[in-house]
Amino acid sequence: MMAEKGLDALLVSQPENCRYLSGFTGSSGWLIISDSHAILATDSRYTEQAKQETQYFEVMQIKGELDSWLPELASGLRWHKLGFEANHLSFAAHHKLSETIKAKQLNLELIPTINLVERLRCIKEPEELELILKAVELTDAAFEQARAIIHPSVTEKEAAWEIEKFLRQNGSEGVAFDPIVASGPNSALPHARPTERILHTGEVVLIDIGARIGGYCSDFSRTLCLGKAHKTLQEIYNVVLEAQLAAIDRIESGMAAAQADQLARNLIQQAGYATAFGHGLGHGVGIAIHEPPTLSPTSTDCLLDGMVFTIEPGIYITGLGGVRIEDVVTLEKGRAKVLTRSAKNSFQLSGFSNQQPIER
Amino acid sequence: MMAEKGLDALLVSQPENCRYLSGFTGSSGWLIISDSHAILATDSRYTEQAKQETQYFEVMQIKGELDSWLPELASGLRWHKLGFEANHLSFAAHHKLSETIKAKQLNLELIPTINLVERLRCIKEPEELELILKAVELTDAAFEQARAIIHPSVTEKEAAWEIEKFLRQNGSEGVAFDPIVASGPNSALPHARPTERILHTGEVVLIDIGARIGGYCSDFSRTLCLGKAHKTLQEIYNVVLEAQLAAIDRIESGMAAAQADQLARNLIQQAGYATAFGHGLGHGVGIAIHEPPTLSPTSTDCLLDGMVFTIEPGIYITGLGGVRIEDVVTLEKGRAKVLTRSAKNSFQLSGFSNQQPIER
Repeated sequence: MMAEKGLDALLVSQPENCRYLSGFTGSSGWLIISDSHAILATDSRYTEQAKQETQYFEVMQIKGELDSWLPELASGLRWHKLGFEANHLSFAAHHKLSETIKAKQLNLELIPTINLVERLRCIKEPEELELILKAVELTDAAFEQARAIIHPSVTEKEAAWEIEKFLRQNGSEGVAFDPIVASGPNSALPHARPTERILHTGEVVLIDIGARIGGYCSDFSRTLCLGKAHKTLQEIYNVVLEAQLAAIDRIESGMAAAQADQLARNLIQQAGYATAFGHGLGHGVGIAIHEPPTLSPTSTDCLLDGMVFTIEPGIYITGLGGVRIEDVVTLEKGRAKVLTRSAKNSFQLSGFSNQQPIER
Repeated sequence: MMAEKGLDALLVSQPENCRYLSGFTGSSGWLIISDSHAILATDSRYTEQAKQETQYFEVMQIKGELDSWLPELASGLRWHKLGFEANHLSFAAHHKLSETIKAKQLNLELIPTINLVERLRCIKEPEELELILKAVELTDAAFEQARAIIHPSVTEKEAAWEIEKFLRQNGSEGVAFDPIVASGPNSALPHARPTERILHTGEVVLIDIGARIGGYCSDFSRTLCLGKAHKTLQEIYNVVLEAQLAAIDRIESGMAAAQADQLARNLIQQAGYATAFGHGLGHGVGIAIHEPPTLSPTSTDCLLDGMVFTIEPGIYITGLGGVRIEDVVTLEKGRAKVLTRSAKNSFQLSGFSNQQPIER
């Protein structure tokens, strides 16, 4: 990809890209890669860690900002075209760098690049898939635990914290994102955050959680109802599940990600809920919880073997509640293989009488 | 500040700056501020939340990237000079925006700005100070708890997790940063992360933790020794403590932050540990765990009444261990007022015999 762009070297600044290529997990560092060099530049706080974490990169200790060391490195190695990550490098960092290059009259051109490393990242190696699978298994286990916790006396926050503790105490490195437990009308907000609201019988509870193992994320959603569900909720559950299963069944390698999105969206539209499915069908999962490919109506990505992504249609009815069902899948031999194991055919949890008084 | 720069409006993209000015905590949004408008632009996922969280901003629902809505907004309001945050806006976002402006032949100039909102943020309002104080009190309480936990049979990771649970279960919104518990030689790395290493008698344990209350952070470090300390460790403890107390005593409003750093650094240098104090004396604390002012030899900041920052000298001896003592202070009526309450005069924890065997 660098040769196609005519680059002598590439400066990698995006932290997940740095980790992907080098193994370095520190919060401050740069990779500089050419056909003969692989350099990890970081300051004195991180040089020891860098040496421990990276195998193939030469660790270079730097001091000060990019413009104080990069131009000299580049001119010393006779690079003339240096790529950088245009979606990550700030306007100010780029500006200072190019001013320094001008002032020093170096024959060095800065070339913006977009998603070079991200394109590598979206096709997972077997070792990466294994880590994602471990993270997926852990969220499956956490959901088992969650089913035992959720009860009409617990708040969303309490349930979310119990789930987080379970994940952390069972091997998750932090969490992939703050767990979502959203009940009743709160579940109608796709990005709801847990509140002090107590779970009620007859209402939905939407659980959206993710673990992280060896740096790799899982992402998981299920929606349950404590006791008997409102007719509309049961109906939208059925529609979402049907759409999710249809997408899993019909997605193929080589398909446009926008077309994959349409597989589920068409069914939701036919059921009369087109405007209630406001987000995309899914997103890639890896070192980042959201990474390419993007499965949405406006995506220009293409789905390929080795990609790992979520399939998570949802229907959200303001004031009543929302339903989202989310699995992680990988494309293998042309078809979607579902990594998530948790059941999704049972919506209404038994054992909760809707007449039961709500107490604290 | 906008008038000084001749700006008709300012685009704020840095998330902490958005939160500071508007109250909005979502992960995706922009503020656009002029003398007659205060707009919070966000997509459909966050418009409900934005309306709940912000009082003085008009919430505008947007779709797509910056260049698809901002140029029209700006030209509709007849703005000609639009400031943006040059340290945060990416090269690519700026480039697309200016290409769109060119293509539409708009009379609109993009003006880079640095740290405009950050300069406001570093002087704390009484309400902000109150939240920081609550977070500081919580880390003090967590340290009390930590003293009960740390014992020669616990791993660094276990201790860090117990501390995190205490913080989270007592009101911290997540943690301000991942807790550091570093023992023995690990404590010599200023950015150590907890490992599976078991705490040993006769070794130091460095604890560095932070809570978050109402969005505001605390930052706290203490170093203890389980039982009798190596002579050198006791000596560096005394030097660090003396340097820390001297800095607290002599810092004044109006002083250059670099000079404040020197107050502690001189003493450490005189004791012969100049090269073992590799980081700055401190940093501002607020919505971000690290924000202006920066107390370091190369800082150009000035310390002013109302600022809140850490004072945290350290000495790190590779292979043996490190000592860091960190308090949060605020400048009030010209002098540093220490917010942190935990004792720092006792280094060696009694009750641990150095002859005690290490078991699991």
